[in-house]
Amino acid sequence: MAFINELKMLKDQIKFDKRFDINNDFDNIVISGMGGSGIAGRIFQEYYTKKPVFAISDYDIPDFINEKTVFIAMSYSGNTEETISTVEQAMKKNAMVFAVTSGGKLAAIVKNYIEIPSGIQPRSAIGYMLMPLFNTFTDINDDDKNKAYTTLNNMDQDHDYIKKEAYKIYENSYMPVIYGSSPYSWVAYRWKTQFNENSKILAYSNYFPELNHNDTMALKNTYRKERFIFYVFGSKKPRITQRINITREITETEFNVIDIDSDNYLEKLFYLIHYGDYISYELAMIRNIDPMDVSIIEELKKKLD
Amino acid sequence: MAFINELKMLKDQIKFDKRFDINNDFDNIVISGMGGSGIAGRIFQEYYTKKPVFAISDYDIPDFINEKTVFIAMSYSGNTEETISTVEQAMKKNAMVFAVTSGGKLAAIVKNYIEIPSGIQPRSAIGYMLMPLFNTFTDINDDDKNKAYTTLNNMDQDHDYIKKEAYKIYENSYMPVIYGSSPYSWVAYRWKTQFNENSKILAYSNYFPELNHNDTMALKNTYRKERFIFYVFGSKKPRITQRINITREITETEFNVIDIDSDNYLEKLFYLIHYGDYISYELAMIRNIDPMDVSIIEELKKKLD
Repeated sequence: MAFINELKMLKDQIKFDKRFDINNDFDNIVISGMGGSGIAGRIFQEYYTKKPVFAISDYDIPDFINEKTVFIAMSYSGNTEETISTVEQAMKKNAMVFAVTSGGKLAAIVKNYIEIPSGIQPRSAIGYMLMPLFNTFTDINDDDKNKAYTTLNNMDQDHDYIKKEAYKIYENSYMPVIYGSSPYSWVAYRWKTQFNENSKILAYSNYFPELNHNDTMALKNTYRKERFIFYVFGSKKPRITQRINITREITETEFNVIDIDSDNYLEKLFYLIHYGDYISYELAMIRNIDPMDVSIIEELKKKLD
Repeated sequence: MAFINELKMLKDQIKFDKRFDINNDFDNIVISGMGGSGIAGRIFQEYYTKKPVFAISDYDIPDFINEKTVFIAMSYSGNTEETISTVEQAMKKNAMVFAVTSGGKLAAIVKNYIEIPSGIQPRSAIGYMLMPLFNTFTDINDDDKNKAYTTLNNMDQDHDYIKKEAYKIYENSYMPVIYGSSPYSWVAYRWKTQFNENSKILAYSNYFPELNHNDTMALKNTYRKERFIFYVFGSKKPRITQRINITREITETEFNVIDIDSDNYLEKLFYLIHYGDYISYELAMIRNIDPMDVSIIEELKKKLD
């Protein structure tokens, strides 16, 4: 499948209606996943805070995990070695183990797993990873999903304005810096990873207000400032908006604000995700690079065997 | 006080023996702090996992906080608005509230606080912020502290090798990229923030194995690769060491490995922290920039009032 068609599948993933079969007697949730499969746990953790949620992206699990822990493993392929390692540890501690995967070893060792379609890039399956979390633990409803669907459908029809942004990066060989804010801080990280994997360029993210305690001091006098492009997600929180405006003013930095006029969490979430997907995809096209190519990661995995 | 003398105080902070007066009947720990005061919670969270620990750096607290939550506010000045906002919310939920501060509003509203000396930069007080956490919740002992003290004392006597590293950055106007790994991933972030605040240059961090799922794809063909310098913390974990070596090889990237031959967590922790402190300080000196100057952050705070 052409990569752009993978992107266009995202809107349908929002309607993915699977949920985990979980009773309410649990103390905390641990979500394990790496890279494109790990980002779902991080985004969810920022939104759902009724119980402690930990998103981990490493080999080992925290000590506190026990039989009252809901442990959810996310691995598109089902064969990510770090994720498998955490699942095996969580099983030994008798956690309630669940998974989202298209198959692989994970499907073989976790009884309660949600199967998702195979054949696309793991990072293109972010909707399949996110929705079971929202369906199970939150009151996000069909109305929210329809709003998000419509917005994504519009972007799929015409994203020329995003293509122009990508061209700006190409023309200037910019390094993208993406600044988010709650509850979308981790979407900024998603953009970073999409620039890495799709466009094959370095990028990084941070968020308001934390960045006002570090990045801000560098924004005026850093080396080669003209080589960075700054994307900032708009916020409905007055204090954050103030911080964005004042930071721009006193550091004399051009902020490219990415925003949608919506009070709907899910709609804005998927809008921001999709924007990052398209901009990194279009940049790959302009650079004449295959956005699907992850041969370096494949080579690494092979050498690790 | 000259900034270098603040750095030299770090070794004495390791012997700071204060602890929180906490009984064992708690469900989770939430540590709130921004920037230089927030990093302690993040480093601690990566080391201590017997109970769920959340490090937050924002205005709001998670919903799950209740009377069984140990809530620790960290603010050097005691007046950080985000941190004060979280404390007020935590108090309303009857959490067990503690603080580490040199005074300010925090000392006025939190009864159980640990007072630390005023008069230095918040980011130079990282030992004062970390040690009460270690003293209270872990079995880190005097032997560990003595080892760390000795190592830092040696660095204070002679850090010419670090000065040379700083000069390399200056000569090439590099952007530092710092790659850590567990349990030192957040020390890589500490380096980033020190480059921001002391040297006034942009920098970013990531960690193994997560970066093998994103940065790695960009390392070969990113724009202007010759403008980045990569620092990688050595690891005693064979799988991580393998990942470092293979990543270097297949992406053809020069990794500057920062390491100390020690199996002692605390010694290596403070070694890595201090290395980052010095390199960012020396770079400021060479750039002829005042590492203490945070006037932009001060200006921002003023405009926010």
